[in-house]
Amino acid sequence: WALEEVGQPYAVRLVSFEAMKAPAHLALHPFGQIPTYEEGTLALFETGAIVLHIAERHTGLLPDDADARARATAWLFAALNTVEPPILELANAKLLERDQPWRAQRLGLIDDRIRARLDQLSRRLGDADWLDGAFSAGDLMMVSVLLRLGGSGLVDDDPNLRAYVARGEARPAYQRAFAAQLAVFTAASSG
Amino acid sequence: WALEEVGQPYAVRLVSFEAMKAPAHLALHPFGQIPTYEEGTLALFETGAIVLHIAERHTGLLPDDADARARATAWLFAALNTVEPPILELANAKLLERDQPWRAQRLGLIDDRIRARLDQLSRRLGDADWLDGAFSAGDLMMVSVLLRLGGSGLVDDDPNLRAYVARGEARPAYQRAFAAQLAVFTAASSG
Repeated sequence: WALEEVGQPYAVRLVSFEAMKAPAHLALHPFGQIPTYEEGTLALFETGAIVLHIAERHTGLLPDDADARARATAWLFAALNTVEPPILELANAKLLERDQPWRAQRLGLIDDRIRARLDQLSRRLGDADWLDGAFSAGDLMMVSVLLRLGGSGLVDDDPNLRAYVARGEARPAYQRAFAAQLAVFTAASSG
Repeated sequence: WALEEVGQPYAVRLVSFEAMKAPAHLALHPFGQIPTYEEGTLALFETGAIVLHIAERHTGLLPDDADARARATAWLFAALNTVEPPILELANAKLLERDQPWRAQRLGLIDDRIRARLDQLSRRLGDADWLDGAFSAGDLMMVSVLLRLGGSGLVDDDPNLRAYVARGEARPAYQRAFAAQLAVFTAASSG
């Protein structure tokens, strides 16, 4: 999505769960995860670092004013460090604690924490289109994180955030990225 | 610590738990947390954004080479997004699930996840002093995150990481920051 926003070409390489733990991938990503990013001799890991790198090297994802850039970057960190952690904890609990007797009660506790964060986010957004002025890498990251809640109903319960996410998904760059990723998955699964 | 590394003056303002939820603080931090950062007309929140901002505006926390800067930034994100989440989950579980019958079992599960991350980090660090060349904002953030495990024994079980954290704590800038913070707390508690 970030590369589509700044109009840069890219190629996507899928990594299997097995390949993620192999030495070649661990050389790119010390924690054996995705995504990784390669550009010439530069190799990066961590979603936030990759999006910020793309945003800093090209036009379209960060404002020109230095203070406004710092604030957009703060939203990028907020998406990954404040909003996403309980969302990831929910996904982890569903997977790793699915056979535990405490499962339902735990999921309820995490839901409450996610809702509290979403309430604060929604209140700050107010009736603005984006979190701080024009669309930025901060919004791109926040919408991406909120999209992880798709199907849970947690975002849908807040019309304000639902509309915010819909604005993100409606961006032509998002649409192009989504179609391109779908084509990659389709080709891989029929290959 | 970051401001001490780059030799910039600062003043610390403590925020009570009550003040964190008040409108004046929510205007600075939409999620009612600390830290926040103010510099002239710029107000920031999110630890990662604040450290990165300080590192970008001053000399001492990021290498000159653009690719090396991007890699140091990746370590800053890795500290906050890959290493810290299970550490925070442990702290949350100890607090929020302390009366639950599943407490002990849950803490064991989280410990295992933290250990897995620390193993990967230790392997990548190898016998280097710092994560990617010279000490950077990435190391500052990683050492800060690992210090949250103080007392748990989780870092102490890995001599390599224990020495890495000790190198961070031994830096004169860290020592100055620690002493200054202690003085702030001492003054506040005797006030």
